[in-house]
Amino acid sequence: MSFSIDPFHAMAVAKLAYALQAEGRSVIHMEFGQPSTGAPSAAIAKAHEMLDKDTLGYWESPKLRERIAHFYREREGIAVDPDAILLTCGASPALILALATAFRPGATVALARPGYVAYRNGLKTLHINPLELECEEAARFQLSADMIAALDPAPEGVIVASPANPTGTIIPPDELKALAEVCRDRKIRILSDEIYHGLSYGAPTHSILRYDESAFVINSFSKYFSMPGWRLGWLVVPDDHLEGAKARMGNMFLTPPSLSQHAALAAFDCRDELEANIDTYRRNRELLLEALPGLGLGNIAPPDGAFYVYVSVGHLTNDSLSFCEKLLRDTGVAITPGLDFDPVDGHRFVRMSFAVSTELVKEAIERLRVWLPTMGPNAQG
Amino acid sequence: MSFSIDPFHAMAVAKLAYALQAEGRSVIHMEFGQPSTGAPSAAIAKAHEMLDKDTLGYWESPKLRERIAHFYREREGIAVDPDAILLTCGASPALILALATAFRPGATVALARPGYVAYRNGLKTLHINPLELECEEAARFQLSADMIAALDPAPEGVIVASPANPTGTIIPPDELKALAEVCRDRKIRILSDEIYHGLSYGAPTHSILRYDESAFVINSFSKYFSMPGWRLGWLVVPDDHLEGAKARMGNMFLTPPSLSQHAALAAFDCRDELEANIDTYRRNRELLLEALPGLGLGNIAPPDGAFYVYVSVGHLTNDSLSFCEKLLRDTGVAITPGLDFDPVDGHRFVRMSFAVSTELVKEAIERLRVWLPTMGPNAQG
Repeated sequence: MSFSIDPFHAMAVAKLAYALQAEGRSVIHMEFGQPSTGAPSAAIAKAHEMLDKDTLGYWESPKLRERIAHFYREREGIAVDPDAILLTCGASPALILALATAFRPGATVALARPGYVAYRNGLKTLHINPLELECEEAARFQLSADMIAALDPAPEGVIVASPANPTGTIIPPDELKALAEVCRDRKIRILSDEIYHGLSYGAPTHSILRYDESAFVINSFSKYFSMPGWRLGWLVVPDDHLEGAKARMGNMFLTPPSLSQHAALAAFDCRDELEANIDTYRRNRELLLEALPGLGLGNIAPPDGAFYVYVSVGHLTNDSLSFCEKLLRDTGVAITPGLDFDPVDGHRFVRMSFAVSTELVKEAIERLRVWLPTMGPNAQG
Repeated sequence: MSFSIDPFHAMAVAKLAYALQAEGRSVIHMEFGQPSTGAPSAAIAKAHEMLDKDTLGYWESPKLRERIAHFYREREGIAVDPDAILLTCGASPALILALATAFRPGATVALARPGYVAYRNGLKTLHINPLELECEEAARFQLSADMIAALDPAPEGVIVASPANPTGTIIPPDELKALAEVCRDRKIRILSDEIYHGLSYGAPTHSILRYDESAFVINSFSKYFSMPGWRLGWLVVPDDHLEGAKARMGNMFLTPPSLSQHAALAAFDCRDELEANIDTYRRNRELLLEALPGLGLGNIAPPDGAFYVYVSVGHLTNDSLSFCEKLLRDTGVAITPGLDFDPVDGHRFVRMSFAVSTELVKEAIERLRVWLPTMGPNAQG
């Protein structure tokens, strides 16, 4: 049996969005999972400096690995060996590296549905079976310890994402701890995608490493650090897989981008700028959570973190891809169909990214306010 | 059965080399497969410009894909659809992407021994069987059409590398054409690693695409364009695999580094600077080919391209790793043990990279001239 790998529908939306923009249309890009801000200023200054000073050969920055280890000490109060931190070309290859190291073809790995599309497709690319577990709105779209405990047989692994994409929901610390315990008892390897850590609106985001030293942890400079196109991430590798992961890293990816490593080290010193970005997201989130119910889009699990709202549009459409395309063509507001995150129920959901300016969020809400009534069941036909 | 993945021994040599350098020792880095020069000046200028102008989000450059397609028209006289060119974070992920797209676990892919270590290990990482074909010095370490014709059963694929790493040898156009014909007849998929194209000292380097439209072609900005740490490469994907490769690209790697794409586009306009680098390599190659026989290291296949000589040291040692370590500790000259390229015969070979300044090549020759007599069979014991 050969797995078929789905494309990102978000890419199709983005392509159309840019085409409309090129025609002179006003487009609001809420389809991408990335900050609209650039890297913090000290990171850019460092990049300028190193462009002139360094030949930028193949390189791995020991200082950056140490700084990331320090980040775990600072934020989580846990000791991570810098040598167990592998620098990667973003979170996506970090996930592939973890999967290729931890599992063999034919293994089964559980994950939440809805969830980030690359989990399912990354597994399928490596011929690992994705076991998608339906996580309902009532459960805030998240996995629980009970769900993992009930699986029979136990899968070889589980992917945990908190804050999650597309929902922004966070697994509470107690539940995360219970989940880690179930996995330890059942010998299920945890891969924790912590790419949205640092982006929380109140709820704590604990690294799985507090509860499970045998987990793989994925993170990146693309979200909190606002450096998506710099393509730099990292993977924390548990002891028993470190040698295998290092060998695979060299063979699959060689090294991460050198200039990005210089810049990322500087980005750690830009807390004020980065926290100002989060203040913007916080305002945007509040605006959306206030406005959407009044637009008939009140069926949402308020996001604890990240910069997304995952909104039910099931009362308006059974085809979220066409819905997003029509919204884009009619109003210039680009959002992502739920199909990217949930092959079963995604046809009745959309994801809106609010990592744009507050002004644009306001403008998008206004455009929706005018447009949505044209889409109601009564307006059709 | 689980494959064990070997580490790069070159990395261990490099680590020791940097440690000695940190102690104040004079080290000549001939262990790495990378130019010691930086990116061409227009590429650096463009990077400075875009650092200030662009937020550097996730991005794929349509212009760069068009420019690469133009490069095939210019250099090879062949038409490649820009849409069939996928931009990757270097040649290593391009290879992984091609392998994951073209083959399933359990497939068999033939390749030359000696050869670049990531071929063998990339295959093993994806649970594809590497079928290493011994290529002798007499055959200039290269695959031939006859060798592929003689394989029974036919493998699913073959990796062709010309100019090759570690030997720099080039498959002549007629042989390459014959090889493509055998593969077509036997339904063997070709993956052609053309990362050293442009680096030739006389012999023509033809793209496999002249002879086989169904091949995957790997290339990068790391060698000819002198931008290794920028982590940018590309994969030309045949029609029948284009959809699958695009979907895998998005899921495994998302996008390549944005700044590197801007800079790489500018690098195409720096032909004079890049050709000047090759003039240096050409001088270095001549110096080595003149000097090495006089040092008792005459057992080499003169490299047609790339920037390596692969030298037999079998009369001096049966342990090329220890040999390289001793050479480095005694003289500061860092070179790579053949073990990285050939698990069977690599213990009696070393690879020297001459992509350094001519002055350093001269200095390395002098250090070898003094040191080698201490290593002769008569000098031991």
